[in-house]
Amino acid sequence: MKVVTLRWHKDRLEMIDQRVLPKTFQYIAYDSAASVAEGIRDMVVRGAPAIGCAAAYGVALEALRLRESSREDFNAKLEEGFHALAESRPTAVNLFWALERMRKHWQGLALAQNNPSDIVGGLLQEAHEILAEDIRNNRAMGKLGAELLHDGDTVLTHCNAGALATAGHGTALGVIRSAIETGKHLSVIADETRPFLQGARLTAWEMVQEGIPITLICDNMAGHLMKDGKIDAVIVGADRVAANGDVANKIGTYMVAVLARRHGIPFYVAAPLSTIDLKINSGTDIPIEERDATEVTGYGDVTWAPDGIRVRNPAFDVTPAELVSALITERGVITSPDPSRIAALLTG
Amino acid sequence: MKVVTLRWHKDRLEMIDQRVLPKTFQYIAYDSAASVAEGIRDMVVRGAPAIGCAAAYGVALEALRLRESSREDFNAKLEEGFHALAESRPTAVNLFWALERMRKHWQGLALAQNNPSDIVGGLLQEAHEILAEDIRNNRAMGKLGAELLHDGDTVLTHCNAGALATAGHGTALGVIRSAIETGKHLSVIADETRPFLQGARLTAWEMVQEGIPITLICDNMAGHLMKDGKIDAVIVGADRVAANGDVANKIGTYMVAVLARRHGIPFYVAAPLSTIDLKINSGTDIPIEERDATEVTGYGDVTWAPDGIRVRNPAFDVTPAELVSALITERGVITSPDPSRIAALLTG
Repeated sequence: MKVVTLRWHKDRLEMIDQRVLPKTFQYIAYDSAASVAEGIRDMVVRGAPAIGCAAAYGVALEALRLRESSREDFNAKLEEGFHALAESRPTAVNLFWALERMRKHWQGLALAQNNPSDIVGGLLQEAHEILAEDIRNNRAMGKLGAELLHDGDTVLTHCNAGALATAGHGTALGVIRSAIETGKHLSVIADETRPFLQGARLTAWEMVQEGIPITLICDNMAGHLMKDGKIDAVIVGADRVAANGDVANKIGTYMVAVLARRHGIPFYVAAPLSTIDLKINSGTDIPIEERDATEVTGYGDVTWAPDGIRVRNPAFDVTPAELVSALITERGVITSPDPSRIAALLTG
Repeated sequence: MKVVTLRWHKDRLEMIDQRVLPKTFQYIAYDSAASVAEGIRDMVVRGAPAIGCAAAYGVALEALRLRESSREDFNAKLEEGFHALAESRPTAVNLFWALERMRKHWQGLALAQNNPSDIVGGLLQEAHEILAEDIRNNRAMGKLGAELLHDGDTVLTHCNAGALATAGHGTALGVIRSAIETGKHLSVIADETRPFLQGARLTAWEMVQEGIPITLICDNMAGHLMKDGKIDAVIVGADRVAANGDVANKIGTYMVAVLARRHGIPFYVAAPLSTIDLKINSGTDIPIEERDATEVTGYGDVTWAPDGIRVRNPAFDVTPAELVSALITERGVITSPDPSRIAALLTG
């Protein structure tokens, strides 16, 4: 079964509900920018590239919803839609990248078209193109990144940077999938990735679906396995990469990178160019989302911590570029990323 | 409320059921070595010093149960009791230390006494003494360790090395408690400590009971908070310390130690001398228990990982002595522990 994270169906956006996988596999349908924004905030969809795709469709849905409005109303309400989507989550830059791209496309269409209904079709086409591009980019990253993994390797990944985090194939898991497609035998170790358990639920589910050997561990076990020689490489995705190569990714990524360095294990980041934010000089300037305490005091309907306890719940952390062995993009692999190498790739 | 982890009541050992805290506070009563061994294995009681106390009472209970037996039967069945207790869990050396001490005491009593009923009383007295000693040791460690913490410090701890892990007061949490008793203002950050959640359930519960400021985080968040300057010191307990100072403790301790070193944060281990195992030269020789997969695929009755997934579940890891800033014992603090300093303390 091929995982289709988001799909356009009967004038609505359908997204797999990633909060209830793997127990329940179901799509939820969305028909407005506000509802998509809520889906992003509640983590029905998550993963930087998938959030970007969802946001693009959110704009298209809103335009569709407003297609009978006056031009003035259409413009005002669509702006509100952009705003709601931009407010949904702060860290993954792909969200803002996709919104910016949809806005530019809208501006181009608005110059050429006289009525909203023509603009709607153009915006939907652009959302489709963003989704198709994401899959092409993941395939390209997969091909380039596969060279870095060796036959027999056991690869640790944190969180889920798979098909579910993208339009398909995945970034980090895409590299693993592509390496396996070339005939290499790999096995995967997944950090469970508290509090939302993307590793235990989503990465595990994706790998089990495809029969890729996978072992699940708690987040605090990675150091022990590295020390024990059980991990050959680490590969993760990214939510935002600063101009200097610092990487914001799911909380716990920094810990894995520090441990990998101590044990001389390569630490790879796979992310499309849309994840690189040249407006941010270094990781310290990346906004880190703090989520609700209830995610940490339990899971789902179960609470295990005592009542009234204080909680910190940063959803992301920043891994400094010095700990990144290579950044894998669709345009090329940057070894030991730094500002000049990143700039060269982007302009090259 | 003072936490009484284990207590002798009406010829039975009663232990707080640590599997169901903080939701349910209840004692379970034990009347044989085999049942205590099961309680240790199932983690009704956990924490190296508490396991040692439980094992000592397990021997006393078994002797009590056999008090009407012939001397031959008594000896054979008590041996079986020792065996069952020794098989319960492999890593915490306090278990074997307590059993060894009870065995020596039994041998001494057997020389002097003619009938089992006299031996029973002597064994029970020794178990009481082991428990009382543990509290005295924790108080002594607390006093010595308190010097290392400063007014205003935020102290990270992993797992639960508190009253619940001992006969009372705690090792790592004992140091924090003692420092607070001297008037220092401390706040605690607790790693939740997957998979058994000793931090989220037990450490959090102990601190909330006493109004000590505590913040709960997931295990993968410690690195981010250290990087952010939010942690001034780390203090943990130990399940076994090798002759060279390597420390086996709850899985994830190694990760915290590596991160602390990177950020120049002191990493302290508080453990009684009974945790030091001179028969083990280095940490690589400490047996690491691997527990059931179901602990990792979910929590309690909830399963969140997909069916049939492979799991690793090492319950402990080893932190090399080079990462330990100081080892706090009841006899003194060893800064930068090494074989000669440890030997000097033990013989001194």
